[in-house]
Amino acid sequence: MATVRLLSEEELSPEAQAVFADIRATRQSDFVNNFWRALAHDPATLKRTWEGVKAVMGEGVLEPKVKEMIYIAVSIAHGCSYCVHSHTAAARAKGMTEAEHRELLAIVGMAAETNRLVTALGAPIDEAYDIR
Amino acid sequence: MATVRLLSEEELSPEAQAVFADIRATRQSDFVNNFWRALAHDPATLKRTWEGVKAVMGEGVLEPKVKEMIYIAVSIAHGCSYCVHSHTAAARAKGMTEAEHRELLAIVGMAAETNRLVTALGAPIDEAYDIR
Amino acid sequence: MATVRLLSEEELSPEAQAVFADIRATRQSDFVNNFWRALAHDPATLKRTWEGVKAVMGEGVLEPKVKEMIYIAVSIAHGCSYCVHSHTAAARAKGMTEAEHRELLAIVGMAAETNRLVTALGAPIDEAYDIR
Amino acid sequence: MATVRLLSEEELSPEAQAVFADIRATRQSDFVNNFWRALAHDPATLKRTWEGVKAVMGEGVLEPKVKEMIYIAVSIAHGCSYCVHSHTAAARAKGMTEAEHRELLAIVGMAAETNRLVTALGAPIDEAYDIR
Amino acid sequence: MATVRLLSEEELSPEAQAVFADIRATRQSDFVNNFWRALAHDPATLKRTWEGVKAVMGEGVLEPKVKEMIYIAVSIAHGCSYCVHSHTAAARAKGMTEAEHRELLAIVGMAAETNRLVTALGAPIDEAYDIR
Amino acid sequence: MATVRLLSEEELSPEAQAVFADIRATRQSDFVNNFWRALAHDPATLKRTWEGVKAVMGEGVLEPKVKEMIYIAVSIAHGCSYCVHSHTAAARAKGMTEAEHRELLAIVGMAAETNRLVTALGAPIDEAYDIR
Repeated sequence: MATVRLLSEEELSPEAQAVFADIRATRQSDFVNNFWRALAHDPATLKRTWEGVKAVMGEGVLEPKVKEMIYIAVSIAHGCSYCVHSHTAAARAKGMTEAEHRELLAIVGMAAETNRLVTALGAPIDEAYDIR
Repeated sequence: MATVRLLSEEELSPEAQAVFADIRATRQSDFVNNFWRALAHDPATLKRTWEGVKAVMGEGVLEPKVKEMIYIAVSIAHGCSYCVHSHTAAARAKGMTEAEHRELLAIVGMAAETNRLVTALGAPIDEAYDIR
Repeated sequence: MATVRLLSEEELSPEAQAVFADIRATRQSDFVNNFWRALAHDPATLKRTWEGVKAVMGEGVLEPKVKEMIYIAVSIAHGCSYCVHSHTAAARAKGMTEAEHRELLAIVGMAAETNRLVTALGAPIDEAYDIR
Repeated sequence: MATVRLLSEEELSPEAQAVFADIRATRQSDFVNNFWRALAHDPATLKRTWEGVKAVMGEGVLEPKVKEMIYIAVSIAHGCSYCVHSHTAAARAKGMTEAEHRELLAIVGMAAETNRLVTALGAPIDEAYDIR
Repeated sequence: MATVRLLSEEELSPEAQAVFADIRATRQSDFVNNFWRALAHDPATLKRTWEGVKAVMGEGVLEPKVKEMIYIAVSIAHGCSYCVHSHTAAARAKGMTEAEHRELLAIVGMAAETNRLVTALGAPIDEAYDIR
Repeated sequence: MATVRLLSEEELSPEAQAVFADIRATRQSDFVNNFWRALAHDPATLKRTWEGVKAVMGEGVLEPKVKEMIYIAVSIAHGCSYCVHSHTAAARAKGMTEAEHRELLAIVGMAAETNRLVTALGAPIDEAYDIR
């Protein structure tokens, strides 16, 4: 199922082609996954989103695999199955070990549990946590 | 506001006292935050939850500060303000720099955006992501 | 904070007054909580919502306190602090004991944890669960 | 998969038949989608829900296509794939152009990003936004 | 799709085998569903999670079927389709009638509606709900 | 509470000052709300986020007030109280009437209810909704 068709290479506008070329160059891979093929109907959002992802996920102070693990954590909490699958693949490609994956999942599950307990209890934020 | 009273030291059951003692010993700090004081009404859940947190957040293959950053990511996505505050404090205490915090937030924001775009487009999961 | 003012008795439209009267009669209490005072700006939605709540939470096959506990569970998972507070009060008024409250919270926390683990693992639904 | 069977016309109770007849008359179409066929096991909830949808999505101050676009936005944020698909179809049927769909998705993605950044930062609500 | 392979009996580690044996003994059924087969890659989390579920869902003050209904409510609100299916099956196995299932769903839907209305209105928590 | 301090004008980096100047020029108002003051610790994310918001919320095919209403809908579904307050103020400033606000809220509430019912029922997406 999908709400828009996935675009093939032939159907891309020139602006979308340029973004796809940059995705391929940045990732050093010819594979462009379905998300970008669906988003390509809107070249402006495609370009803005890809440039955001490239800037945020590119070189910085955190390791690339750690960045992908944070992406996975958010995707799980948002219930986005596509995103969980694509970023789990990306994290593995960037060096996430199976032991790290297991630890990631244990943390996400634990956080979900305490997040909901806190909300249920209505515990007020401790003054010690206020940085003002 | 709260749905249960925060328990003072004097009001703790012996089982809750034992958990509080272990929290203090593990964290090497006398401070016990409001979440545990609210959860202490239920010594069994207090004990099970604390032991889960201790096992999951203790020594493993990921750095302690990275673990806290994953915890923050989940807490943001679940909209738990208390949790965001407490784990941001914990991550800083374990060495998260301000530059790392900024990068974390940028990733969480970006992930939220692409998570929702994917759901909106209904893009099917690429076969390349299936590990079966 | 609020996005609309809370209406006092004097400011209610006749349609809103009628709903407030029914809330009071149904609950056998003069107290009308802030949610309804905020919703009263829209008498049509006030009426439709109150009648939905009255029908759904009224006499049925589940005990009144169990119904409120289900309401609390949903409110926690949606991160609605107001709702958690108001329905925890309602559940207690309808007989929920502190032991039941503790058990409810433990279940909600546990469910949150396994919900997120399932999503992280992408486990396919077992055929045994399909009722078709 | 499903947790209840989808009911065929022959299996509908008289009350459910009446609701289906009203769905067909209101939409001027013979097609009744799976949601209603699943909900038809509970004629009371079927009736209440359909009447709510009919009242809320019927003639009002907002254009029908705008109403469907708001429905899509909520469905995306809740991660309901069925709802995203059905209301995207409905919005198109009511005149949403592809350009409008693209703009909708860009807004939803952007809102998701800033929503999560705000929660991460814990920014207090500006007094200017309080209407009291 | 899945992010890890489902483990067959032959692939289980001795620790995972022990957990599976306890799942079978506790449930008095040979069937072990996909969630546990996916989680079995991490025997420590498998064991901790199963023991948590067993403790929380085991004998207590609430009826077993009520506990499962609360589990379903949380799973719906988290958008976890696997969890909704598995716990709906579990609730039925523990005696949930179709009438109770229908009432559960009506409550969850109603709670979702009022949860979102409250958030939209920003209604402040009534002092009457504060237990401090 | 907050996890970072709100920056005053004097504390802004030159890059952040430039973004603030553009916010003021675009909105034709001297007021810069707390979100941007918190985000200003990270000039790169501040700039990228503001430029995204400006592009997405600027002139397009949808009316400015409709865009803000979609933003509100997402913010409610994500449980972001700050965002609900700020975008409700923005929508009103751009012409949203109280009648439109009421209709928006009724739709969001209704969508929340049917979203959760659909997930609970596990209804499969109708083929008619697939655009492939």
